[in-house]
Amino acid sequence: MLIDKNLNTPLYIQLYENIRNLIEEDNFKEGEKLPSIRSLADKLDVNNITVVNAYKLLEQEGYVYSIKGSGTYVRKTGYNMDISYMEDGDIELMIGGVLPISKNSINFASVSPTPEIFPIEEFKQALIEVLNRDKGSAFVYPEINGYEPFRESITSFLHENYNMTVDKEQIQVISGGQQGIDIITKTLISQGDCIFVENPTYSGAIAAFQSRGAKIMGVPMLEDGLDLDTFYKYIKRYRPKFLYMMTNYQSPTTYSYSEEKKKKLIELSKKYNFYIIEDDFLTDLNYDNSKKTPLKSMDDLDQVIYIKSFSKIFMPGVRIGFMTVPQKLFKDIIRAKHTTDISSSGFLQRAFDLYLRKGYWKKHIETIKKVYTEKYNTMVEELDRLKKYDINFIKPNGGLSIWVKLPKEIDSIDLYNECVENNVALVPGKIFFIDDSIYSNYIRLSFGAVSNEEIVQGIKIVENYLRKKYNDDNNEYLPFV
Amino acid sequence: MLIDKNLNTPLYIQLYENIRNLIEEDNFKEGEKLPSIRSLADKLDVNNITVVNAYKLLEQEGYVYSIKGSGTYVRKTGYNMDISYMEDGDIELMIGGVLPISKNSINFASVSPTPEIFPIEEFKQALIEVLNRDKGSAFVYPEINGYEPFRESITSFLHENYNMTVDKEQIQVISGGQQGIDIITKTLISQGDCIFVENPTYSGAIAAFQSRGAKIMGVPMLEDGLDLDTFYKYIKRYRPKFLYMMTNYQSPTTYSYSEEKKKKLIELSKKYNFYIIEDDFLTDLNYDNSKKTPLKSMDDLDQVIYIKSFSKIFMPGVRIGFMTVPQKLFKDIIRAKHTTDISSSGFLQRAFDLYLRKGYWKKHIETIKKVYTEKYNTMVEELDRLKKYDINFIKPNGGLSIWVKLPKEIDSIDLYNECVENNVALVPGKIFFIDDSIYSNYIRLSFGAVSNEEIVQGIKIVENYLRKKYNDDNNEYLPFV
Repeated sequence: MLIDKNLNTPLYIQLYENIRNLIEEDNFKEGEKLPSIRSLADKLDVNNITVVNAYKLLEQEGYVYSIKGSGTYVRKTGYNMDISYMEDGDIELMIGGVLPISKNSINFASVSPTPEIFPIEEFKQALIEVLNRDKGSAFVYPEINGYEPFRESITSFLHENYNMTVDKEQIQVISGGQQGIDIITKTLISQGDCIFVENPTYSGAIAAFQSRGAKIMGVPMLEDGLDLDTFYKYIKRYRPKFLYMMTNYQSPTTYSYSEEKKKKLIELSKKYNFYIIEDDFLTDLNYDNSKKTPLKSMDDLDQVIYIKSFSKIFMPGVRIGFMTVPQKLFKDIIRAKHTTDISSSGFLQRAFDLYLRKGYWKKHIETIKKVYTEKYNTMVEELDRLKKYDINFIKPNGGLSIWVKLPKEIDSIDLYNECVENNVALVPGKIFFIDDSIYSNYIRLSFGAVSNEEIVQGIKIVENYLRKKYNDDNNEYLPFV
Repeated sequence: MLIDKNLNTPLYIQLYENIRNLIEEDNFKEGEKLPSIRSLADKLDVNNITVVNAYKLLEQEGYVYSIKGSGTYVRKTGYNMDISYMEDGDIELMIGGVLPISKNSINFASVSPTPEIFPIEEFKQALIEVLNRDKGSAFVYPEINGYEPFRESITSFLHENYNMTVDKEQIQVISGGQQGIDIITKTLISQGDCIFVENPTYSGAIAAFQSRGAKIMGVPMLEDGLDLDTFYKYIKRYRPKFLYMMTNYQSPTTYSYSEEKKKKLIELSKKYNFYIIEDDFLTDLNYDNSKKTPLKSMDDLDQVIYIKSFSKIFMPGVRIGFMTVPQKLFKDIIRAKHTTDISSSGFLQRAFDLYLRKGYWKKHIETIKKVYTEKYNTMVEELDRLKKYDINFIKPNGGLSIWVKLPKEIDSIDLYNECVENNVALVPGKIFFIDDSIYSNYIRLSFGAVSNEEIVQGIKIVENYLRKKYNDDNNEYLPFV
């Protein structure tokens, strides 16, 4: 066992990592006893407390358990939450990370990037520079609407990346995209107000709108944006406060709006006087040469409230994003933000500001696009093979998911359960629909958190299920295997 | 008029700013007509729509008004950010930092600590160690309820400091105390539900409860906790979902609960089945030997939801706190947190965790208590001098404010305005009361953000006002000066 006292990594962490690796590499039997604290400390010539801390960390992580007065024992089966009988809401929690997805699972459920592509070194530089530069001031309350230089950086970011012209006074910094939705909800929705959403859409937005008593109308999504015919019909009958939508690589459908539909939407929002809440977390991730821009870039009259999340294109744990605020709503939104959490961490705003100012952003986006392009191609290739089972999907050439339509005989919850048993996590499409009784034959497969190898393996599990289903149920059609 | 097409700032904003400056610098008379849209557009060689937008913005901001078919006219009396005529809500924004408190002001309005007492070096160490130890993992989504080792540290913190026994599974990490209030509100309040608060109380809590449509009953605060007689009467008539309260150094009154009243409250909460939301941000700051404990330390049946903020006793810009969660509400609170902002920054949770584990906390609290004790003594001494003007206050021996009762002839808003003119910011007591028509003769003077010298100077300004008032209005009583 290698413990190096010259390393920066604390000794107990080194020890923890060593033992964890040994357990993962099957060097222990289930229930095998670890050496006593004292004997291991002596052997490694470290303090008892180092071993205590390492064992504690192993226990926290589920690798060992301790029996008082007896010792510490290896746990190999680990914390096992039976995920095969979850409610829909639990699936969201699972995606959100509260309920565990087994560590060995191939995770097609998560849209989040994985740590190895985080720009840690650059962000660390920014963090340390902020600490040295601002000292205590880094930790005072920032303005409720956000640290002013950061709002300034954001306006440059918007201009450079999307040709969007917004004044820094129109920026409200938020603690991630979900908070933007929450603040809009508080500002604009009273009990019984009508709002429109794309159908299907992001379930976290629906939860926020519902919790405030909104009446929610779903407008079907087509491949070039929402269905304008239905939209017209609804808009004359109901007077929505706003439309909640995603312009590019919509979640879960992966569809993007045509330029024509974008123009139409802006026109309609003026004519019928409703806001458009544009939720953007993926616009930057195109894998072809057709760079997309947000709807907001077209908006010259403050009809669009643009919410930008960096969780998927930067790092989720930073919890900093922003939204644009129409002049008329400025005071209301400030009050809602204040009631929500006073302000977002000033320290992280300062660090992110510096990160943007140093021009690290462009390089980062190039790096992750390269990684994602490869994963995207792998997934599309694998799924193309499955077309013989009558599945269907469009190729979005961007984003982090593929939205798969299964043959209508297949219930996505069945497929989901089968996959869980084989350590593959995916999201049944149902949870994204407003009227979730129909549309049970969709699944969302995301490739943000999986490796190329996992994509190949995971899709095989899906294929096994499809093949079995076909052979069982559909004797007229026996696909070649 | 300067319009520069090469600037990043949109033309209409530039135009707006130009005209606004002209109006503010008295270049227009009240009611003077602005040039017509077309003539101004021609003259500046810009689009008509640019002028339309600039005029619209001016109107929104109260600088002009328009008469249909006639034109746009200058309004000089107009909406004027003159803070001597602010609404109560604006005062909150001012305290919150959105509306400016003049930088030269002596700030008795803010309860926040100032940067020079932040434990920057120790926290920086923790931040860097986390970056080295966890690398990219520091920035993944943490569990919605919080990073597990951090929740563990919190349970140790609670045990050591308040003899409070809470399991790590009962901890929900939050982005500051206000978010705790927001999440409780979402979890427990539906339109029309009745809740009880101390009267006066924290206005940020009232704003959250009101925004959700709660019916709010205020129970008067006495020096040893809320008035139980009124409480009994109310509780029989209304069935409250919860009581929102602060056990130690209540804001704004600075009163602390007697042990007896604490016991009574717990009993009542069981008997009448309501939750007690205990908001704690000052318990740790006692300046005598009577160390206080939260109400939660007495609660063995999950009746008390304990919200802990570190903004006042650590650093506001970190935006990390926690709350305890009754088993029964666990799932609802997780969902509310998820809908609110997915999770609090995992990076900051990890750093704060390490900070606590390294035992820096105790030293920090000792340091700030020393600083605050001195300020507290200075302020009490200065205010003692003012007793000759019939002011009254208790000496809380803790916390960050003094709650001053003025003679009933004095309106705190008048005093507030007079102080603003002399660069002293304080908070008129009115904004803390539910029924704000009465109780206009209180002020809250906080000493967290001022130096000893500023305390002396600032109280002189208050004294000048009191003396003048007495000499003017009260000829029977001419205090010695």
